[in-house]
Amino acid sequence: MVKFLSFIFFIFIIICLTLSIVIFIVYRCLKWHIPKNSLLDKYILLTMTSLKPDFLSANEKYAETFKDGDLLAPPSKKIAVLSCMDARISINDILGLKLGDAHVIRNAGGIATDDAIRSLIISHELLGTEEFIVINHTDCGMLKFKDEELQKKISEKFNINASSLKFYCFPNLEENVREQIKKIKLSPFFPNVPIHGYVYNVKTGKLNNVV
Amino acid sequence: MVKFLSFIFFIFIIICLTLSIVIFIVYRCLKWHIPKNSLLDKYILLTMTSLKPDFLSANEKYAETFKDGDLLAPPSKKIAVLSCMDARISINDILGLKLGDAHVIRNAGGIATDDAIRSLIISHELLGTEEFIVINHTDCGMLKFKDEELQKKISEKFNINASSLKFYCFPNLEENVREQIKKIKLSPFFPNVPIHGYVYNVKTGKLNNVV
Repeated sequence: MVKFLSFIFFIFIIICLTLSIVIFIVYRCLKWHIPKNSLLDKYILLTMTSLKPDFLSANEKYAETFKDGDLLAPPSKKIAVLSCMDARISINDILGLKLGDAHVIRNAGGIATDDAIRSLIISHELLGTEEFIVINHTDCGMLKFKDEELQKKISEKFNINASSLKFYCFPNLEENVREQIKKIKLSPFFPNVPIHGYVYNVKTGKLNNVV
Repeated sequence: MVKFLSFIFFIFIIICLTLSIVIFIVYRCLKWHIPKNSLLDKYILLTMTSLKPDFLSANEKYAETFKDGDLLAPPSKKIAVLSCMDARISINDILGLKLGDAHVIRNAGGIATDDAIRSLIISHELLGTEEFIVINHTDCGMLKFKDEELQKKISEKFNINASSLKFYCFPNLEENVREQIKKIKLSPFFPNVPIHGYVYNVKTGKLNNVV
């Protein structure tokens, strides 16, 4: 009888493990085939919250060799950079900057939105930056769609009216850089701040001076 | 006579060189002693525009050894990070991420402003991110002032009414992280996106899990 119960328990454990592996494979490899917001999609999200990449252990390694704890809040090179959120951009590497050198403001497109202007005011007035750099980049997602298309997509998907949402997509890179610099200069808060503009090439790693 | 003219010309060149060096020293070493917006400050900014740090030569070195030209626009780890513009933060290093892994959205404070939500919509809907991370940090500038103080400062400085400008300063770090996650979740666009919240310690390099 004990042997039989042990056998049943063993089979139960094997079934649990197999199920876990199947769910893991479905989540990791097939997630893009599961209709969004379907019951299965929601079930997977619910069961798999513990499967997020282990950032904390990666961070522990970073902290072990961390030597920049004495850096001060004001950027040492007195520079603020406004750029795109694109995953292929590392502002410090591109500009040869070190940790602590510059404020980095990033949003979709590297746009001088009201929020970017808010950040620049804080950067300039409270933390002493004296020079701004605007960087857009080749192959930017914002070149590939129109505001109206995304408004329509999310309006239909979420059954709301998103026609007033501005996404600031643009058709020309250099022109967009000039436009953002113009917007910053038109605000009354930076009368004497030099602003430079570049386009970064994600294929070559090179910056091209625009303004 | 020719000798005399040559001598005068020589003296003229020496005076010009000396003046340039003096202006350079004033600009580089004493700039913070010159009253902002004074005539001398404006003159220096006008004459010294070519003295901006040589980012292009630093970038040339970066491009020489650049090997990431084949990365695609959608972040490979399907992650978008919202954090502060602070110069002491390198998101990829802190989280153990590589170039191409994650969207990085940054503004003063790591605030879920309308602009950050705009960027997250584009990130999630058009470039396939499925998980968000909000990171605030210790010693943040936004803990050290109040909106009203900065509104008053720039209103007086630029002789305008800036009392309606929101800066989103906050008194408590963990609470602010929770608040930003709540704001993202309250927007209708991310019903099934897991959102994690951390506080980064700029003295130790460590992340502390908040949500």
